[in-house]
Amino acid sequence: MRKVTLTLGFATTLFLSFLFLSNASFGASDEELIRKASAVLGPLPASMPSEQNPITPEKVKLGKILYYESRISVDGTVSCSRCHPISLYAADGLRKSIGNRCKENPRNDPTVFNAASQIAEHWIGNRTSVEDQAKQALLGPPSFGMPSYASVEKILRSFKDYQTMFKQAFPEDKEPVTADNFAKAVGAFERTLVTPAPFDSFLKGDKSALDDKQKSGLGTFMDAGCSGCHSSPFVGGQMYQKFGIFEPYWKYTKSKKIDVGRFAVTKNESDKYFFKVPVLRNVAKTPPYFHDGSVDHLEDAIRIMGKIQLGKDLTQKQIDDIAAFLDSLTGKIPEDVLTVPVLPTKE
Amino acid sequence: MRKVTLTLGFATTLFLSFLFLSNASFGASDEELIRKASAVLGPLPASMPSEQNPITPEKVKLGKILYYESRISVDGTVSCSRCHPISLYAADGLRKSIGNRCKENPRNDPTVFNAASQIAEHWIGNRTSVEDQAKQALLGPPSFGMPSYASVEKILRSFKDYQTMFKQAFPEDKEPVTADNFAKAVGAFERTLVTPAPFDSFLKGDKSALDDKQKSGLGTFMDAGCSGCHSSPFVGGQMYQKFGIFEPYWKYTKSKKIDVGRFAVTKNESDKYFFKVPVLRNVAKTPPYFHDGSVDHLEDAIRIMGKIQLGKDLTQKQIDDIAAFLDSLTGKIPEDVLTVPVLPTKE
Repeated sequence: MRKVTLTLGFATTLFLSFLFLSNASFGASDEELIRKASAVLGPLPASMPSEQNPITPEKVKLGKILYYESRISVDGTVSCSRCHPISLYAADGLRKSIGNRCKENPRNDPTVFNAASQIAEHWIGNRTSVEDQAKQALLGPPSFGMPSYASVEKILRSFKDYQTMFKQAFPEDKEPVTADNFAKAVGAFERTLVTPAPFDSFLKGDKSALDDKQKSGLGTFMDAGCSGCHSSPFVGGQMYQKFGIFEPYWKYTKSKKIDVGRFAVTKNESDKYFFKVPVLRNVAKTPPYFHDGSVDHLEDAIRIMGKIQLGKDLTQKQIDDIAAFLDSLTGKIPEDVLTVPVLPTKE
Repeated sequence: MRKVTLTLGFATTLFLSFLFLSNASFGASDEELIRKASAVLGPLPASMPSEQNPITPEKVKLGKILYYESRISVDGTVSCSRCHPISLYAADGLRKSIGNRCKENPRNDPTVFNAASQIAEHWIGNRTSVEDQAKQALLGPPSFGMPSYASVEKILRSFKDYQTMFKQAFPEDKEPVTADNFAKAVGAFERTLVTPAPFDSFLKGDKSALDDKQKSGLGTFMDAGCSGCHSSPFVGGQMYQKFGIFEPYWKYTKSKKIDVGRFAVTKNESDKYFFKVPVLRNVAKTPPYFHDGSVDHLEDAIRIMGKIQLGKDLTQKQIDDIAAFLDSLTGKIPEDVLTVPVLPTKE
């Protein structure tokens, strides 16, 4: 009798264990994953506001038009959209962007989607905000390449429609058509560019928004330590980090030359090879990877990151799962952003 | 008595004449103008079909995506949209377009809107159709600059999504991902790019669609002889004509060098300085003007055309009226065309 009872007891335990594991995989563990991911990453906001540059519909409307304006570049070929085309998830697919008169930019071009969430802009943080980035790009030798802000303002003022739209967007200003307001308008537009993704539906409780592979990848992403740096709802953009903690990055990338990173800005020895941790939203849509665009495939980028940032040889399954999770960060481009504005013509 | 009768008779005649003239200006003359313009120019069709390349929704969908595809250019920066951005009415505002690696195109870039209606493409007619233009652009040294069609096909085939979309657009083809089918898809898309304008509403009987100045300009445009060459619903694109019938064009334009025009294609002496008569639809939105983009303002272009093509010194009023009429050819860009497609990503 005792043996039977024991056997029954063992069977019951096995059954209960199985039940528990099932729940863990398809019920309780989803909730646990959601809880953890909500704490580590968190829900995407509706926009990326700024106290210095409040988002208004008039600024956003103007900013979206200016985003396409190429006639304020020194050779007439550069607009924000040149290097950040919406059709390619607001990146350009090049290792390094090509600006006016074929000048190459120093680093790979990040998407402007979700970019305003970051502590600073550009890989080395040498732009304080999207507004600062937009303004400085006007004079940037490898971007718009204009000789002065006055020269940009002169062109913009020559369009009656711009005079009207700037006045509407900046009604308090005596002379609203300025490079500063160009930057504010473009910045306000860019502050609306958040791209909600399946991952966000998952965080909101839609357990079917991610498949098992993606859930496993999310777990690995957090457990392996990726989210230590790629944190916040934007999955990055919140800190600088040395690229190559365990080994120099150029041992694994196909980098053609060594980039000192943030050292170029601060001149602090301790900032050598530090770069801003990039936002991973839409990363599956914006190859090539790293500050120099030296790696073409997401899986390779994940493998390298594991190796040199975490000192880990990730397994192929871990890499595939993380890639699947990252694909769940591919967001929906807002309808309005997918509509091209028609630019003003001179009278 | 006789004198009184005569006086009354004279007054009546004057009155009746005035009545007639009033009608002529505000009623009957509109109808007359509509009748004449319908005969000389005519109603805009819904699309620009081709027997060789029937328009299908699948081809148009694919063609619109390919229109934005820059990854099939030698430096990754050139797509159809690079030189024909929708935001600038599918022209680029430059005197001459800048293609891959900053190479300048030989002539000013015409809009692709309504372009498929023409007897041939390019200013000198060295492209037989929009399909021929799209295909040859892939290898064109100052456009996409690719080394071979095979190299383009290889890139397109590396995208699983393109394989699917080409198969859908060309279901009969064993290997649908070809440069020829690229050209057919882009061509089918471009064959839908007609832009109905206020002028078309006027032709349909909406007399208020044009204001008095525009109506006067339309009358002048036909009476002065402009519509002799700028004919058809597309207001051009139907013939070649010598640029500079009465005097050499370079006497009046700011041309930097003399372009022999269609002579470069045919080597016939009689084709020297002949160019395709450009479509004037959306001309007010697509400065600068002429084959070399040498003239910035529409009014100057009209003045020069009067002088050297018609041997006439148009008055300022005539010029202003014609410019106003030409502005009534500024069309509505179809909603769907104003939406940016999202391009495929490699698996």
